[in-house]
Amino acid sequence: MTALPPARISSPYHDEPADPRVEALVNEVIGRIADKWTMLILEVLTDHGEQRFTRIGDLVGGISQKMLTRTLRQMERDGLLVRTVHPVIPPRVEYRLTDLGLTLAEAFCGVWTWAEKNLDRIETARAAFDARKPG
Amino acid sequence: MTALPPARISSPYHDEPADPRVEALVNEVIGRIADKWTMLILEVLTDHGEQRFTRIGDLVGGISQKMLTRTLRQMERDGLLVRTVHPVIPPRVEYRLTDLGLTLAEAFCGVWTWAEKNLDRIETARAAFDARKPG
Repeated sequence: MTALPPARISSPYHDEPADPRVEALVNEVIGRIADKWTMLILEVLTDHGEQRFTRIGDLVGGISQKMLTRTLRQMERDGLLVRTVHPVIPPRVEYRLTDLGLTLAEAFCGVWTWAEKNLDRIETARAAFDARKPG
Repeated sequence: MTALPPARISSPYHDEPADPRVEALVNEVIGRIADKWTMLILEVLTDHGEQRFTRIGDLVGGISQKMLTRTLRQMERDGLLVRTVHPVIPPRVEYRLTDLGLTLAEAFCGVWTWAEKNLDRIETARAAFDARKPG
């Protein structure tokens, strides 16, 4: 596949120098969201709607409580999700994506699709690499 | 390769339980590539073509030599880039994206665009969060 257009019209990145302030901010934001846990939590909340803390942890799988707390807090700070404390006893705290979070999930869709589509190629590449460089 | 059921084509995430083996692998791959340094190196090599180790480090900015070595090695193992040792003295080692790496850069384009487009919303959300929760 992969007939890339020579002109690079669809190129994701910047051929011309952008405003350095904007570029630094974009890099910082990419650094924040290009993060395994952020992406997996985004997936879980897209699939399952509003959820409680422990349920999110179960659905993500393999995440420590500390890391889940930290990632949810960062996502809330970035405006990707909303944390709601329901006034019941004991208080029920739930998290759901904002519109901003939903649009990020959509944008990330391309990467997800890429991963599904290219699993075999990645596994083949890994096997070849490991065979070439044992240890 | 990996003909995915048509039902899923337009949905970013999984509404129905997929093959758990495939799902685990996709999550693992997402965990690998949803990584700040991988994404920034992908950007640099998309923009600048084949480059030497030190030049990649300079262009990425703020990455330790150890982390750069590790990320380049993982990307090579995943088939995203090729490492070429030019037989000169001293040997010149250069890295360039494979077709697979280029398609990932394209897939990630949506996230980059999202970040550029939503910078202001993210900054506003952060300011509001920080005002609400000092300390």
